[in-house]
Amino acid sequence: MSRSELSDALFTDLYQLTMAQAYWQNDVTGEATFDLYFRNFPPNRAYYVFTGLEDILDYLQDFSFRDLDLSALDALGIFDQGFLDFLSKLRFTGRVRSMSEGTLLFADEPVLEVSGPIIECQLAETFIVNQISLQTMLATKAARMVHAAQGRLLVDFAARRTHGTDSAMKLARSSYIVGFVGTSNVRAAATYGIQAHGTMAHSFVSAFPTEADSFRAYGQSFPESSTFLVDTYDTESGVRNAVDIANEMKQRGHTLRAVRLDSGDLLELSKVARGLLDEAGLGDVMVLASGGLDEYSIEALVKAGAPIGGFGVGTRLGSSADAPNTEFVYKLVAFEGKPVVKLSSQKANLPGAKQAWREIDDDGLFRRDIVMLEHEPTPSPASEPLLHKVMQNGKASAQHPDLDEMRQRFQGQFERLPERFKELEANHSYDVIMSEALQELTDSTQRTARRQEST
Amino acid sequence: MSRSELSDALFTDLYQLTMAQAYWQNDVTGEATFDLYFRNFPPNRAYYVFTGLEDILDYLQDFSFRDLDLSALDALGIFDQGFLDFLSKLRFTGRVRSMSEGTLLFADEPVLEVSGPIIECQLAETFIVNQISLQTMLATKAARMVHAAQGRLLVDFAARRTHGTDSAMKLARSSYIVGFVGTSNVRAAATYGIQAHGTMAHSFVSAFPTEADSFRAYGQSFPESSTFLVDTYDTESGVRNAVDIANEMKQRGHTLRAVRLDSGDLLELSKVARGLLDEAGLGDVMVLASGGLDEYSIEALVKAGAPIGGFGVGTRLGSSADAPNTEFVYKLVAFEGKPVVKLSSQKANLPGAKQAWREIDDDGLFRRDIVMLEHEPTPSPASEPLLHKVMQNGKASAQHPDLDEMRQRFQGQFERLPERFKELEANHSYDVIMSEALQELTDSTQRTARRQEST
Repeated sequence: MSRSELSDALFTDLYQLTMAQAYWQNDVTGEATFDLYFRNFPPNRAYYVFTGLEDILDYLQDFSFRDLDLSALDALGIFDQGFLDFLSKLRFTGRVRSMSEGTLLFADEPVLEVSGPIIECQLAETFIVNQISLQTMLATKAARMVHAAQGRLLVDFAARRTHGTDSAMKLARSSYIVGFVGTSNVRAAATYGIQAHGTMAHSFVSAFPTEADSFRAYGQSFPESSTFLVDTYDTESGVRNAVDIANEMKQRGHTLRAVRLDSGDLLELSKVARGLLDEAGLGDVMVLASGGLDEYSIEALVKAGAPIGGFGVGTRLGSSADAPNTEFVYKLVAFEGKPVVKLSSQKANLPGAKQAWREIDDDGLFRRDIVMLEHEPTPSPASEPLLHKVMQNGKASAQHPDLDEMRQRFQGQFERLPERFKELEANHSYDVIMSEALQELTDSTQRTARRQEST
Repeated sequence: MSRSELSDALFTDLYQLTMAQAYWQNDVTGEATFDLYFRNFPPNRAYYVFTGLEDILDYLQDFSFRDLDLSALDALGIFDQGFLDFLSKLRFTGRVRSMSEGTLLFADEPVLEVSGPIIECQLAETFIVNQISLQTMLATKAARMVHAAQGRLLVDFAARRTHGTDSAMKLARSSYIVGFVGTSNVRAAATYGIQAHGTMAHSFVSAFPTEADSFRAYGQSFPESSTFLVDTYDTESGVRNAVDIANEMKQRGHTLRAVRLDSGDLLELSKVARGLLDEAGLGDVMVLASGGLDEYSIEALVKAGAPIGGFGVGTRLGSSADAPNTEFVYKLVAFEGKPVVKLSSQKANLPGAKQAWREIDDDGLFRRDIVMLEHEPTPSPASEPLLHKVMQNGKASAQHPDLDEMRQRFQGQFERLPERFKELEANHSYDVIMSEALQELTDSTQRTARRQEST
């Protein structure tokens, strides 16, 4: 069976469907609320950047099982025909409250809340956790690079290095939201309306009799958008060849955009390249660097004063190499109007529908977040609510914002984050506290749960 | 523009297309050969398991740019109309030689070789590297767990933890090839024809008045395939509740399949659970464990004698946490009949079309691999060629083998791998040597390239 024939509704863990049948057979079909939050941050992460909501809303709005999905379920031999009929008519009819894409998030606060009939909310868990985890993780890795690059350009070169094609698409989008200038991934650029960037590969240089021939041919094809890769044979002589061809282009009224270094000591080689270009009066030809870079090596190059105007990043961005997974969980916090907790070791959750507020200090910086019950009043005048209603009765409340709006939101958020949380090896943890009312509800719900356990 | 409207041919780096235009305009359109190989293995990896070929062959066979793709390219404003017309008719017409899925691979040997007109081979690079990297990485992570589990069952629970949906699908397939019994991912199970597995979530237990009520309801819905999650409140009392409900089920002639531990000290709790189940005459109810497991913790539990019959693994499998990326590269090794190398620091490749041979020692174990030129004779009677022709003139040579054939191949390979390479913290590196003829060709091609560089 081809993957594309089965719908996203079937992208779920089997237990979501078996639990749904047991709920349905036992008439446990009341209204539930589930919280999505991030439990323990990995080392070197004081913030994450929330992205991925648009895909969640599209998924929920389109949620349905089609005939082929139902046949596949029937073939498992464990589902009741009446239940499959029920599934064939099932749509998502609930409510979603969420942070906006581009918002900074911290540990143990709700970032997205889904309410509705328990079966609908439960079936959506797998897709929601998968996509928010992925996109938020990649946006965060990219944001760290943007911070390290201190204004130098960043381009996503990771299409071949992400975990699959879905991840590559989402990386291009997420990295744009946090400030990348574009992506090498043509399908992503076209899908999301962001800039496509590219240079040339070593194979291109090797396919011509000489390096200079390859540069000349490429410069003729792309007279205003050429970047020459200068390290196929020897970087210094590669730069000299680039200078020669750039001068030929200049005589025809054209401009070489950049040279790219992809191996060796990037600090030293960038100085050599910059020197040779400047000497030849090619001060506007940028030096780009790539090859195994991440936020740590970018920061080191920037601090050492490497004359590099932009970075192309691949492998370590595409895999979020130093923190390749997250601990987002999606937990039942209310059912049939009653708050719910899970007690077992270290995995307790906060009961009830909630709101997270971000307090702003006198300098306009983020002071701390306060998690409260949904309808508590504003904790202080200088605080902003983080969860907004984005879906009601299964319909998105508004058009999706465009990526540039998210990009501005991220920038506005990041400017207000105190510097200590931006350090690449941050060991500061941002304060997230609970309101008294939430603390009381948590205590009383835990007491009730303990009584339940002991009966 | 919706992602699904654009074809996989557009899932490529921009430079593949700009290079293609420069090739086309300069009439550089000869036959090329590209090698895919894995440069530097990360720590704790002595072998990888090759998977992902089926997707590559499907992609190449279906390769074409459709109208929407061409419009997207045209909108970039850098492509010549004649070149776009050329692209509209382009198909992959070349040859592929490859390892079979399930084969063990080692560093610096060719695993897949693509030959054909240079533009066709070049455009396919991004997708090929992305998919082989992903699937091979995940198969390898899963194989390490299978080895650590020493015959205990393993189930892929990672659908919510992989980097996106594509990765989740490929993980289910790859982990099955190396010996997992199944996956929780329903779409993957249906797509690939493998077993779907599932238990229940904490939310299910919380949604009923008592834990016992939730177990009873689930057991009634799934009288022969229930696993009860016993750690929502307190694990020991959870097991006692499971025992009670299992006894009720027994009286109706049904059987509880398993209990699942998802938190706490899994060694101690598994002993407690096993003890309580055995005491109650429920010796055939399995104890399953999950919760942040990987091959290291599985090995520790197995060595400590934990009475655990199976493991569900998620986060650390789905992200290949200790080695979340690979260094597969796809390099031009021959063009217009001539061997090609790239000289720059540490990135030299082996020129020409090649064959990799696996030598078998007197005990039937893998001794070493020898990389040779394609048409050199067998190095010794006890050696097996690893690359097979799987596509000719753009058509796959045969039906795809089924997953069980790949699974058997993997098992046959793994049995013949000497034990020292299977250690989880392996610091042994398997020998891959070059034939004399290949060494000579490499030397002479490098000499030619150096002369080219200095001109």
